[in-house]
Amino acid sequence: MIKRYVGIDLGGTNLKLGLVTPDCRMIERLSTATEAARGPDHVLGRMADAVRDLAELAGTGLSEIAAVGCACPGPLDTKAGVVVFAPNMPGWNNIHARDILQKSLGRPVVLENDANVAAYGEYRCGAARKARSLVVLTLGTGIGGGLILDGRIFRGVNDTGAEFGHIVIVHGGRKCGCGNRGCLEAYASATAVVKRFAEALAAGESSTLAGEEDFSSKDIFEAAAAGDALSRRIVDETADYLASGITSLLHVVNPDMAVLTGGMMAAGDAWLDRIRGRVREMALEPASAACEIRWSSLGGDAGILGAALAAEAFERTGQPA
Amino acid sequence: MIKRYVGIDLGGTNLKLGLVTPDCRMIERLSTATEAARGPDHVLGRMADAVRDLAELAGTGLSEIAAVGCACPGPLDTKAGVVVFAPNMPGWNNIHARDILQKSLGRPVVLENDANVAAYGEYRCGAARKARSLVVLTLGTGIGGGLILDGRIFRGVNDTGAEFGHIVIVHGGRKCGCGNRGCLEAYASATAVVKRFAEALAAGESSTLAGEEDFSSKDIFEAAAAGDALSRRIVDETADYLASGITSLLHVVNPDMAVLTGGMMAAGDAWLDRIRGRVREMALEPASAACEIRWSSLGGDAGILGAALAAEAFERTGQPA
Repeated sequence: MIKRYVGIDLGGTNLKLGLVTPDCRMIERLSTATEAARGPDHVLGRMADAVRDLAELAGTGLSEIAAVGCACPGPLDTKAGVVVFAPNMPGWNNIHARDILQKSLGRPVVLENDANVAAYGEYRCGAARKARSLVVLTLGTGIGGGLILDGRIFRGVNDTGAEFGHIVIVHGGRKCGCGNRGCLEAYASATAVVKRFAEALAAGESSTLAGEEDFSSKDIFEAAAAGDALSRRIVDETADYLASGITSLLHVVNPDMAVLTGGMMAAGDAWLDRIRGRVREMALEPASAACEIRWSSLGGDAGILGAALAAEAFERTGQPA
Repeated sequence: MIKRYVGIDLGGTNLKLGLVTPDCRMIERLSTATEAARGPDHVLGRMADAVRDLAELAGTGLSEIAAVGCACPGPLDTKAGVVVFAPNMPGWNNIHARDILQKSLGRPVVLENDANVAAYGEYRCGAARKARSLVVLTLGTGIGGGLILDGRIFRGVNDTGAEFGHIVIVHGGRKCGCGNRGCLEAYASATAVVKRFAEALAAGESSTLAGEEDFSSKDIFEAAAAGDALSRRIVDETADYLASGITSLLHVVNPDMAVLTGGMMAAGDAWLDRIRGRVREMALEPASAACEIRWSSLGGDAGILGAALAAEAFERTGQPA
């Protein structure tokens, strides 16, 4: 019988799970509320229950699940299986999530950073199947990063590798949530797009969105597509900032693929083409020639698939994915 | 008998060679002019002759040299053993240097990027002996980069990894020699220090160096140490630019050591302390806590030692260092 693995994508709002085969088929899935406000013990209980529910839905027993992978936000200690801190989940400080889940489920569990497993998912069964080395940028309210080198997740010496949102693209520039200035995230996250747009409006620039109560980055991308000049400029500049960040990554890691994912995929193909064109102009020729830039092909499933396949790699090799 | 390896550091002006043991002792050395103007065939002939001279100096035969490592400037194809292009050496376009030297010497030869072998030298027998993952920045007329991950030279998919001089620290900023804008090299190389200083003078700022015909980055660092306010500011800002670059590297690679080397080591320990302090302020806490920042301990010998030890690793394991 083909082995089966569970991938859990632990988010501040939702828990998403899938039962996955080594050849990337998602046999069954479920989604439930995280109920993060009730604290880590409650959430870990819900996670274990959800794994049991998923097995039942699939008509299988827990004992037939070879291993469980969990994609977690926030700084982790992957070796120890500990969530050091999770920004959007109260009480998650040094939580030994791996051991707790392992004990509750009686199955091997691995914990991985959510952006890293998204990258691993794209590498194993998504847009980056042909890649050898891969950078992934998740473009959402923040900017996350995942890094695969020679087919393995790259974590750095203490799990702080691939924090691509916090590479510096403007020395002394905009204040970032991390406390530093000039981070990529402070220019090119969805939050930063809205902020830069609102500042331009406040400075007296005109836009079809002027006078709206509230707007999202999606509204700005849509207004740009509909011909609003200010939105167009903000959207184009966002592509250019991202191109600076990607250029830096090409000059450190020299990957053969860069995958962009997250909410800002809604920006569409013309926007991706602008990023590609700018990187081609900016980067050293061999580095840009080697690197294809693509949208994610797994979208919101990358976390589940990547987590399950990281568990599969661990169970198969005895080494982290 | 202990095996012996030759390291060659091929520079535009000088060829430097050393006979090296696996435990990092340099038994013999010699230096001779490259005579780059006479073209690649001539230079490759001089390199082979210098290896023979070195063996003779050490009272040994060529056959007792286990392997030869060569640190080369410019873009390489390390797998093919080819110098793709060498900026300061006329005629070096797609030169199959490895095969030519191997045939001439009858010994195994490996070609490696000069900044990468300098990093490997520091890792094997210098400032980074205790490191697991290491970034090296060579601060000279340009800024070069070397990267060691988990004890091995990291080259990227087509030998364009670790081009740290060309990570972007100021989006849309100063023009760089590479054609892009805002590269670290355009702000923090010795050349950039002189340029930024000259611009400040031209803009009417006063300095004890004003009126001098010509000055070097060393003059500016010395004037700063002697209390010249403009020199002080330029020197401090250079440290800050480097800190932005190093912060980005910490957030991609999460190394446990960063080593600075090259001509700007003359700037001294107080300057290094400023860089350390700024990185501590800017970087995510776990990333900066994990990473020690040091001067090179091998200085100008890093290339010879690293090249010899890269040859040693290849000869011992059958794999590139």
